[in-house]
Formats: sequence, C-alpha cells, structure tokens
Amino acid sequence: MVVGDFATKRQLVIIGGGPGGYHAAIRAAQLGMEVTLIEKEKLGGVCLHKGCIPSKSLTQTAANFSGLSQLKTMGISVPEASFEYNTFTNYYSSVVAGLQKGVEALIKANKIEHLTGTASFMSSERIGIDSGHHFEMYEFEHALIATGSSPLLPKQAALSNRVMTPHTLWELNEVPGSLLIYGEDYFALEAAMAYKQLGNEVSIVVPADGFGLDASIEKELQRVLKKNKIKVFKNHIWDSAEEAGDTVTVTLKKDGDEKVSVEASHVLYAAGYSPNVEGLGLEAISIERDEKGFIIVNEHSQSSVSNIYAAGDCTIGMKLASKAIKQGKTAAEHMAGLQSAFNLSLVPYIVHTNPPIGSVGMTEEQALAEGYEVKTGQFSMSGNGFASILGQKEGISKMVIDAKSDVVLGIHMMGAGAVEMIQAGTYALEMVAREEDLAYPVYAHPALNEAWLEAIENASGRAIHVPPARKKEKSSV
Amino acid sequence: MVVGDFATKRQLVIIGGGPGGYHAAIRAAQLGMEVTLIEKEKLGGVCLHKGCIPSKSLTQTAANFSGLSQLKTMGISVPEASFEYNTFTNYYSSVVAGLQKGVEALIKANKIEHLTGTASFMSSERIGIDSGHHFEMYEFEHALIATGSSPLLPKQAALSNRVMTPHTLWELNEVPGSLLIYGEDYFALEAAMAYKQLGNEVSIVVPADGFGLDASIEKELQRVLKKNKIKVFKNHIWDSAEEAGDTVTVTLKKDGDEKVSVEASHVLYAAGYSPNVEGLGLEAISIERDEKGFIIVNEHSQSSVSNIYAAGDCTIGMKLASKAIKQGKTAAEHMAGLQSAFNLSLVPYIVHTNPPIGSVGMTEEQALAEGYEVKTGQFSMSGNGFASILGQKEGISKMVIDAKSDVVLGIHMMGAGAVEMIQAGTYALEMVAREEDLAYPVYAHPALNEAWLEAIENASGRAIHVPPARKKEKSSV
Repeated sequence: MVVGDFATKRQLVIIGGGPGGYHAAIRAAQLGMEVTLIEKEKLGGVCLHKGCIPSKSLTQTAANFSGLSQLKTMGISVPEASFEYNTFTNYYSSVVAGLQKGVEALIKANKIEHLTGTASFMSSERIGIDSGHHFEMYEFEHALIATGSSPLLPKQAALSNRVMTPHTLWELNEVPGSLLIYGEDYFALEAAMAYKQLGNEVSIVVPADGFGLDASIEKELQRVLKKNKIKVFKNHIWDSAEEAGDTVTVTLKKDGDEKVSVEASHVLYAAGYSPNVEGLGLEAISIERDEKGFIIVNEHSQSSVSNIYAAGDCTIGMKLASKAIKQGKTAAEHMAGLQSAFNLSLVPYIVHTNPPIGSVGMTEEQALAEGYEVKTGQFSMSGNGFASILGQKEGISKMVIDAKSDVVLGIHMMGAGAVEMIQAGTYALEMVAREEDLAYPVYAHPALNEAWLEAIENASGRAIHVPPARKKEKSSV
Repeated sequence: MVVGDFATKRQLVIIGGGPGGYHAAIRAAQLGMEVTLIEKEKLGGVCLHKGCIPSKSLTQTAANFSGLSQLKTMGISVPEASFEYNTFTNYYSSVVAGLQKGVEALIKANKIEHLTGTASFMSSERIGIDSGHHFEMYEFEHALIATGSSPLLPKQAALSNRVMTPHTLWELNEVPGSLLIYGEDYFALEAAMAYKQLGNEVSIVVPADGFGLDASIEKELQRVLKKNKIKVFKNHIWDSAEEAGDTVTVTLKKDGDEKVSVEASHVLYAAGYSPNVEGLGLEAISIERDEKGFIIVNEHSQSSVSNIYAAGDCTIGMKLASKAIKQGKTAAEHMAGLQSAFNLSLVPYIVHTNPPIGSVGMTEEQALAEGYEVKTGQFSMSGNGFASILGQKEGISKMVIDAKSDVVLGIHMMGAGAVEMIQAGTYALEMVAREEDLAYPVYAHPALNEAWLEAIENASGRAIHVPPARKKEKSSV
C-alpha cells in the first residue's frame, strides 16, 4: 500500500469466491501473484451452497434410497427403511460446511487476501469495495469477474416456498407431495429423478421435444423417465402459475396458443439464468457483453478490456462449474504471462439421473449437421456382465465416429458408471483417438467399461455380445 | 464332412469355452471362419462359474451391505438390515445363469458348432473328442487352446469344506466364522474385504511384504485393511494345515524356520495356479511350455506350433479374464489373416476391495528400476468433493511420470470409482499421454475424476486443493 494514495494498490482483484474465482485465486497465488478475493457471501459460491454440492447430495441420496429395493435380491434385507428429510438437510449442510472450511483454509494457506463486501468498478483500473461499514478503493493491475449467475424468475408467478428456482429449492424441508418442474437442463432432470425416487409424484415440462442429448440417449432417457412414472410434457411453454392454499396451478401453452393447466403442490422453475452483474459498475468499463448481458471472453478468459478477465456463469456459454474452474485457472495463468487457453468443445456434460448420463463431444445429429459422414456403434448395458451383477441393466453407450478418418467425434452414455467413465471419453477425444485406439486396449473384466469396447467394436459389426443377425445395434436416428 | 474319411475336417477347433475361448469363437465366426468350440463343462468357464462373476457378486454385495451404515447420515434409516447367505447364493447363481444363457445364444447365433466333451491332440492337425458315449476325430486347420488353469492345492493339507481354494469357495453356504486367507493377489484381497464386511473375522497371510502394488497404494491399502480390522501376516510362508472339528490350524513359517500357528474356522488357499493341460495330449504336438507348464505364446497368441494358438490362463503371464479375452480375439484375427497383436504391458489391474483399486502402467518402483527419472503427483480422496458427498473419503490417486519427457508411465488409484476410472488411464497410456494431456481437459464437477486432475497438477506443485506449505503430497517412497 502506498501511504497517502487515494486507492490502495493490488496486483489482482477477483470478484466472486465461487469455483471460478477461488480456483483462479489459488492458481494466481501459485504463480507468484498477490491476490485479493472479494466475496459478498460465503466462499464456494452457488456451486457449493446452492448448486453442485446440495444437488449431488440429493441425487446420491435418492439413488441410494431407491437402490435399497435392489439389495433384497442380493440377500440384504432392509424391511424398515425410511427417509428423513431433516437428516438429509443436515447431511448435505455438513458436507457443504466441510468443503467451505477447506476452501477457506486453502485461501489462507495461499496467502490470498480475502475481503467480504460488494465490488463496483470505477474504471478499468479501479474498483470500490463496500463492506457494509466502510468503503475502500483499490487500484488493480488485473481483475477477474467471477460473479456467477442467478436463475431466471418464473414468468407471471410469485416466488414462494411452493414456487421455487434451483437456488431456492434448498429451502424445502420435505419431499414435495407433487412436483412440477419446468426446464430441460441437467438440473431439471436431476431434481425430477431424485424427488420421484424419494417417493412422490413428479412431472417435467420441456419447451422443446426433449433434453438436447444425442437422440439415442434421449430415447433411452425418455424410456427410463416413463418407467419411473415421471410424466413428461413436451413442447409446452410456461405461461403462468398461481398459488392457492397448498396447490400451485401452472398454465402451459402448447401448439401455439392452446392452454393446459397442471396442478402440483410444488413447482420448480429451472429455465435459464441471468448474469450477476447488477451494481458491478460494468458501465464504467465498457466491457463487451451479449444481448442477455453475459460477458464476452476470448479463449484466455480475457474480456474486451484487456486487463479484465471473466470466468464462469457470468460469461457467455454453458453454465457449469467445470467451465468456471477451467476459465478461472486459465485467466490466472494468462495474467501471469503463460499462454494458457481453454477449449469448451470437449466439456463433459453430466446428468446425475439414475442411471446417470455422461456425454462428451458431438452427438450424432451435430456430427451430421457439420457435414461428417458418420458411423456409430452402440451397446446396451443389458449385455454387460457387471451391470447384471449390479442389477443396473438400463442404459446404452454410443460412439459417434467420422467414417472417413475413423476419428471418434463423440461418446455418449446413459448407464451405471457413466460419470466416472466419461473422463476416458474426454481423454480420447482430446487426443484425437481413432476407432482403433479404443478397440485395441485391454479392458478390465468384468467391468462397466467393457460396454464401451462393445460399442466401439459394434461400429464395425464386431461387438462380441451383439448377435450377428442384428449386425449392429440400430441407431435411433 | 468328407464321407469315408477317418477324421472329419474343421477349419478352427477351440478347446475351452471360457472367456478366451468363446470370444475367439465369436470373433472367428465374425471373420467368416467355421468354428468348433469344445467345452467339457458349461460355457463361460471358470470366469463365469467360479471366478469373476461370483467373486464380483460377493464384493458388490459386501460393499452394499457395509455401505448401509453410511446411509443413516444421509437420512436413510435401515434399522433392521440383515444378510442371508442363501439368498446371496441364489442371486449370483441367477446372474451366472443369465450370462451363460447369453453366451449360449451368441454361440448359436454365430453358427458356431458347440461340442461337449474332452479334447486330446493326436498330432498338430488332428484332435480327438471324447464326449463320454462316443469318440470322434477331427482334422483341423487351426486350433486354439483355451483350457484355463486351476488353483494350486494347499500344501500339506486336505481340501475340504473348511480348507478351500478360489474355485471351491463358492460351495460355502454361510459367512465363515473366522477366515484365514493365504495369498497376495486380487482374489485374496477381495475375499478378505468382502467376508470381513459381511461381518466376521478375517486375516490374510502374505509370503512377501505386501501385495505387489505401487508403494503409495500399498500403504493406503494396508491402512484400510488395518482400519477394517483385517489382520495381515507379512513375510509368512504356508507350511501346513490340519482340520479338527470345526477348527483349522494353519502352520506358517516366518524368519526362516520359526513356526507360527493360527486357528480359523475356514481357510482359503489362493496362492497360484497351474495350467489345465493334463490329458490334452500336448506331448503329441511338442508345444513349448515354461517350467510350470504354461503354454508359451507370441504377441499373436501363437504357440511354437504355428497353426496352434493358446489364450488365457493356460498361457504364460498374468491370470486375468481380460487377458484371455484379448488373446482369444487376437488369435482369431491372426488366424483369419489380420495382423492383430496384443500388448500386455497396459492391462489394467483391478482389486474390488472397498474402496476398490485400479492400476495401469508402471508403479513408481518399476519406473525407477527401469532407469526413468521419475516425478509423481498424488492426491488424497479426502480432498475430493464428490467423495465427501459419498462419504467415501478413503484412498489416493497417483500419477507416475517420466520427468524428462513428461510422458505418463503409470496411473494408480485406490478409491471410489477406481474401476470405472482406470479405463481413462489405459487410454491415456496407450496414446502416450504427457502430463499436459491430463492437465488440460475439462473435468466434470463435482466428480471423483477430479482427483486425477489434482494428482496430475500436484506433480508440478499446482494442485488447487493441496496447501502450498506441503508443496506436493509426499510420495511414500
């Protein structure tokens, strides 16, 4: 600090202590920078407190609970099983608290200055921090905006303890008697599956035909949803919702203007996000943003103002913590003079349904649309020995391959183990694997992984566990 | 068949319907060959009936049973849980029966001739099949020996329903009151962990210092065994065993000739295998074998007799179904004129302990012994967010890297998800991945996979969730 100066000087100021912000802070500190991290609430951000961690605690708990019925056939009898929501809340809260403590310790250990307050840019070199009781001005060399996003509020409806967004869902203290979910992303699907498996009615409304997955996976997902008695309203658009007593009546529009009413005890509106940029003073720095207000960044996480970077949900593109983490670290490295860049074409897309979905690279439809001559191979989990042991025979694995070069373009799976296995897909695609690179290695046996070997061999009609009459499993498209 | 000819002609004769044999049969049929598959018992072999499938049914059931206590914290209460061995036996028997039916259907669908009987070579072109009620002679172009192996019998002890091998373990009809296991491979470890988690006393005796894993994994494994109260006798050699009433007294030798006696209700002797070649008439074809009798094959699964191939446990090297499958398919392809070859340096090694172990490529010790300048990175599962959600925080991930070229030489993990994740390691090593190839991709969040990102970043002191004071997690060696 320079005494007498109006603004105290900082090398790097990071606004937002979510995954993008704290990963950037630690990486910058590792690279020798002096870092100030500003967070107005708790370290960890939405991901830790209202997103990833609570939601995966929910999906995991629901999967465990619904899995109990499976155990009986194995010889494990659990006649008196029951579920208590309060204990579940305590459980995920304690996981969150433990992880928050971990992040706080890391911030401290990396000698990162941690300020609690609200930040607002004055110029492209100055930022003010309002900590409630006092206001301080900082002059910075670099800044990183990692303020996240907030769920859009339901149109023509009042938010309440019955009409919820992905961020307020965590105020629930019981399994909803009946839950209507409006949305088509992983969050909507995960909540639908989890609350259904915890025992009550769930329906899910999507504005389009489905959930934007590869058509073969989509087909399997919709079969699984149906089998789980989760009603799916396709091509229905949210119109409005009205709460009366313990019921919410949601009005949807289909086929143009026809209106349909659906009643539920609770409604989750999970239909998009807006960037958390209000009050941030972005007008003072003329940073480029898209029509929805998301900050435009290049592959170094750099905004249109060269010393100001942005990472995560407040930027254009997908809203995933994994993206935020990559962008945050890339920003820190680029500021420190490294030539780091990110590429979001191979971000794995995960849905913790039961069974889960893991997907990386192009879907068959995307590959066709990009002009590839596509060949595919797929394999049903019902033919996998380890899936039989688990009693989890639902799902398929699918390989999308460029028929001309044999390069694998996409790997898509719904099935037990999909989340853990998808990293192999990312490695393969990053390293420009060909069909042969996936067919050649030895696969552990018996293992869920063998489903991929069969899928890749199926692309050339050589899957061992697919009868020859069918030659290869038919693609759904 | 040529009428009047002494021997009927066949293009390919396969002896043994286990994984090596039946994969070879189907692949050969896919390539247009006429195949005769001879099996004296049931299709599927030891793997299906007395190995992989029953043993993974056991480990999975035990993991599920021991996992019940974890559920309480999640809000899932299971006060009256119990385990019934008979139901478990019915469960894995039905999994086995289902898979056997599947293999039978595939053999039929691929128009493979399936004979039940005992085969014996007459020459390198003729084989006799004794089906009990009649004997027939076949003249073959190619033959594949895939007869498997049998566990060595315990020295100075009589096999009984209390003194068992890996193949007779499945005759148990209750959890042993106390089980002593002699052996150091995955089978010994899996049985130890499973029977312990199903509730009773288990001890394990190893002739060496440990289980042949990377030293860091070994250390974590031994910590987990200790925590599970599984007693490990290191550097103890089997001497003899004597059964009296419901007790078996096992005598072990340590430090030269000092004798130690240990009592248990049951003993599992899992200390190696011998090839199933008796009565096969190998003396008639002068096939090369090693000093223990295992058939020597080249990288095409070809024996010293050029038209006779061998695959799986009856051949030199590791005893794993995954190897048998690869060798069987390679043999079929090579006979059909393809240039297929296998490489067993990157066979994943899996142990279904709880948590499981997955390992591929060189251990740190192997890499050092081969003269590499080694750097390593490792990360504890206790720092992984998803492991916290699962409540499965035991284990570590470790990367072994050539410090000169940055090429990853080995990936080793003990922890939740290790089996599913290890395939990513195989892909990475097969494609000669460098440190950067594993650090660059986007990893799903929150996911167990992130442990590998931290481990690889830790190799250069840049793991986000490792405090800088420690710089990098210390390797145990």
